This record gives sequence, structure tokens and C-alpha cells, in this order.
Amino acid sequence: VVVGPGDDCAVLDLGNARDSILFKTDAVVEGIHFTAETPPEKIGRKALARPLSDIAAMAGIPGAALVTIGLPKDYDLERVEGIYRGLNALAREYDVAIVGGETTTNPGGIFISVALLGKVASGKTLLRRGAQPGDAIFVTGTLGGSLYGKHLDFEPRIREAQWLAGRFHLHSLMDISDGLAGDLRHILKASGVGAELHASAIPISREAKLHARSSGNAKPPLAAALTDGEDFELLFTLPSSQAVPLLDAWKAHFPAIRLSCIGKIHQTPGLRIRDKSGIRTLNDHGYVHLS
Amino acid sequence: VVVGPGDDCAVLDLGNARDSILFKTDAVVEGIHFTAETPPEKIGRKALARPLSDIAAMAGIPGAALVTIGLPKDYDLERVEGIYRGLNALAREYDVAIVGGETTTNPGGIFISVALLGKVASGKTLLRRGAQPGDAIFVTGTLGGSLYGKHLDFEPRIREAQWLAGRFHLHSLMDISDGLAGDLRHILKASGVGAELHASAIPISREAKLHARSSGNAKPPLAAALTDGEDFELLFTLPSSQAVPLLDAWKAHFPAIRLSCIGKIHQTPGLRIRDKSGIRTLNDHGYVHLS
Repeated sequence: VVVGPGDDCAVLDLGNARDSILFKTDAVVEGIHFTAETPPEKIGRKALARPLSDIAAMAGIPGAALVTIGLPKDYDLERVEGIYRGLNALAREYDVAIVGGETTTNPGGIFISVALLGKVASGKTLLRRGAQPGDAIFVTGTLGGSLYGKHLDFEPRIREAQWLAGRFHLHSLMDISDGLAGDLRHILKASGVGAELHASAIPISREAKLHARSSGNAKPPLAAALTDGEDFELLFTLPSSQAVPLLDAWKAHFPAIRLSCIGKIHQTPGLRIRDKSGIRTLNDHGYVHLS
Repeated sequence: VVVGPGDDCAVLDLGNARDSILFKTDAVVEGIHFTAETPPEKIGRKALARPLSDIAAMAGIPGAALVTIGLPKDYDLERVEGIYRGLNALAREYDVAIVGGETTTNPGGIFISVALLGKVASGKTLLRRGAQPGDAIFVTGTLGGSLYGKHLDFEPRIREAQWLAGRFHLHSLMDISDGLAGDLRHILKASGVGAELHASAIPISREAKLHARSSGNAKPPLAAALTDGEDFELLFTLPSSQAVPLLDAWKAHFPAIRLSCIGKIHQTPGLRIRDKSGIRTLNDHGYVHLS
């Protein structure tokens, strides 16, 4: 066991192998992660896309998966076939071999757990704990409002993470599943450092902006980008000197995907955010009370 | 992928490694595999013992596990702690590292899925498909009536399978989870052979005998031994010439565990059983109608 609980995947070494094994399970449950109205193909897709995002979070290459499905007794066969269709389509796209699994009864609704194996060159694992003072903090894509649709459609950042790890000296890497502020805290805690974010640099999704405008109850857009779950974007740090070369190379290689430098790692612990009115500390739940 | 769906575990090769990886998931669900009255330690123990039995079925060595638990919203924390206690105790006994997992909500009741990795020397995997005409058929322990208690207490045959694979030239191996007759059929089908069992040699459990005697509704003991699920004993074949040396060595090494030679592999397809009144074919569900 190279890395046990607490990072995006477990990392295992198998004696004399050139590669380490990445090992991850993730479950989606009816009524929690999807509803009776969710198109079945999107349920299956999401069930595999989530652990794929964790393999991306270690800059790993996915390999094989086992799929466990719990079904209520009166399940709809067409719906189950749709789930497998969506799952298998994404598996083909990312060269994942579905090597088995099981179907069992689950009285309360559909429960899907995917166990996924991946690999990464031994000693090349990108963890949460390597961030260093002076590092620039980057995030892919845009953040917030995932529950309005992206949580069923997001692209796991497998290719982007491999490209990053192969060309740049990343210090830390993870995927954002519980919101930028909460997940960045995991990097800070694991690395024993602090950070300062620039409010104006945080890439807010169109959905988060739209819903803040149209609904009185919605979070302010910046709060949504900081605290909404299920973004499944990459969050990473690397030495500031590599920031500009990275942004140039990224734009040439992934012109359709936004990459944002959102702040810097500091020696002083804690997570702070700077906007035009000054610097304030983000509270424990990652939520910042902006007036 | 060396072996995909259809055997006890998936078998994967990782490039230049000396060992192959065994990969298995197994789920237990409240109301199906245990009840609200089952002691929580036994639930956790069973959740891990089941996939351990599948690693044994490949003569593998277990390594690391991820544990997914789905809980209803009003779950009892003490019960969940008991589940983990039972699971962790068995993990220690078999040197399994619990390297993570997740807890999620499952409205209908407790759902536990364990993903388990193991290893086996490359090329030494023992599958279902190697049985040859002339092989003797063996089974460990006693069969039938597992639901009266053994399904919560059974010992996965990890040590026994490793001992067997290290000292004898087994042709096929699996664990019995759906009943001897049904599971032996898997070996026969995968190997393209048939078999003849000796009714008097099949080791019937004390529980199956007791319940047949005390309840008018219970299956006849032999039928229970042939068709009851959750025995989790080893079923294997090897050349007949090794049968007597095996029985001698086994008795010396595992004096407390019964080992029975229950029949022979034949070229003629189908599964037959011989008793004092002659030979009859077992039907598709493995059940034999003995008068």
C-alpha cells in the first residue's frame, strides 16, 4: 500500500512492477445522485465518469472495471439496459474493460457501485500533499451549478491530466467533487500550507450565473463556484515559473477547455480570498459571505 | 485482461509484473443476504468473507479492499460500527488492507459492496475451464443448510486453496456459492466435459440432516447438499492418480476439515449421479428427484 484512505484513489504496488495500481470505487444511488426521471444512459455514464475523474485526479490511465447494480424487485428492464448502454459507451471512449460485476436486489431503488482499476508509473503518482509555498493554483473548466446538468454530462479529465503530468512538474493534483473551497482545503491540509485566491480569476459557470439571476433563492455566482459539488474539474498546483508556459501550451493543445490561474499557495495556513474590497478568510464550510 | 466475466474473479496482467491481479466485487443487502436481526459484526464479516472466497477460488492471495456502504437516513451508528468491527477483524485475519471506500445514502436499507484485489503468480491462475476426463472431483467441508447459520460464519478457504495449488496439479477450481450441482455445471460447461457423482460420497452437513428430520417442508438432505446456496467450499478436479496422495496429505495438514472425493469427470457431457438404485441425470436446476 503506497497511499491508503484520504486521497482520490488508493495506490498499491505489486512487488516488481513498473507501474503502481490505482484503485477506486464510487456509488450512485437513486434519489441521491439521480432521480426516477434521469435518462438511464446518463445514469450509467455518470456511474463510470465519477471514478474515472478520480483516476484523472492521480494522472492515471484507467484499465478495468467491475459494475455492481442493485435493483428493486419491480425494476424496468429497458431502464437497466439503458444504464448499461451509457456506461459501456463511456467505457469504450476511455478504453475501460468491463471485466464483470454482479446484479443483486436492492429494495429501495437503483444502486450502482463501480470499482475501477488504473495505473500510473511507479513513483509518479500525483497526490494532494505536494503543494509548496509559491505554487500557482490552477483549475480547469468552469465551476458551480453542476446540478443544472453538467453532473450528468461532464467529461472526466483523463487526457488533460496525463498531458499535464507528462509536460509539467505538478506539485499536487485532485479533482473537484465537493466544491473548490472544500477540496482546495484538502490540498492545503495535506501539504501543510495556506492559499490566497483571486475572486475575479475564479471561472464561474454560465449555469451558476444564469440561476443566480433568475432565482431569488440561488447562491451568488461566486459562492456557487466556490461551494457547489460535482464539478469534476482538475485542481492543481505547480511552481509559479511554469504558469505562463503552461497557459500558452494549454491554449494550443486544449483550445476549447478553459484553464485558470486562480491564486497562489502561501506558507501561512488558511484559505483566503481577495477581491476589490480586500482579503477575507473563507469559513469552514468553504462559503464566503460576500455582501 | 487475462480472464474477463464468467470466472470467480477477473484476472488482469499489468505489463511486466511477475503476478497477475485478481479483481472481484461482491455486495450484501439488507433483506436479501441478512436481516434487521443479524448481529452487525456478522454482517461485516460476511461482506468481506464472500469476495475472499472468490479469491480462494482462484488460489490467490488477497491484498487490498475498498468498502462501499449505503445507509438509510435513520441508520443506527452503533450497528454501522459493529459492521466495520466484523469486517476489520476478518481483514486482519487474512492480511487484507482496507485502503478506503465510501459511505453513501441508500434509502431502502443497508447495502455493502466490497471490492477486493488479490494476486496470483502469472500463468498459475486456476480457472473453471481446465477439468479433463478422468479427473477426480473433490469438495472441502460439508454441504447444504448454510442458511441455518454457516452463511454468516464460514471460513474462506484461502489457506487451503494455496496449499492445494502449491502441492498438487489441480485442473480446475472454484468456490461453491450457488449449490454443488449448479456450480459443478459451470466447470463442466467451461471445460466441455461431463461428470458422474457418487451420492453416498457427497458430504452432507449436520444442519441439512437435522432440518430434514425436524421439518416436513425441508429438502431431503442430499438435495440440500446438491442445491442449497452459500456453502463457500472449494470444488476442484485433478488427475485421479493424485487422489490418494492428496487425501493422505490433506488429513495430515488439515485434520479438522473434511475433504471428499465425490465423483469423476467424463467425456460424455451432462451431470449424472449414481446411488444404490442406479444412475440418473440431474436436471437443469441441479435438483435430483430421489424417491
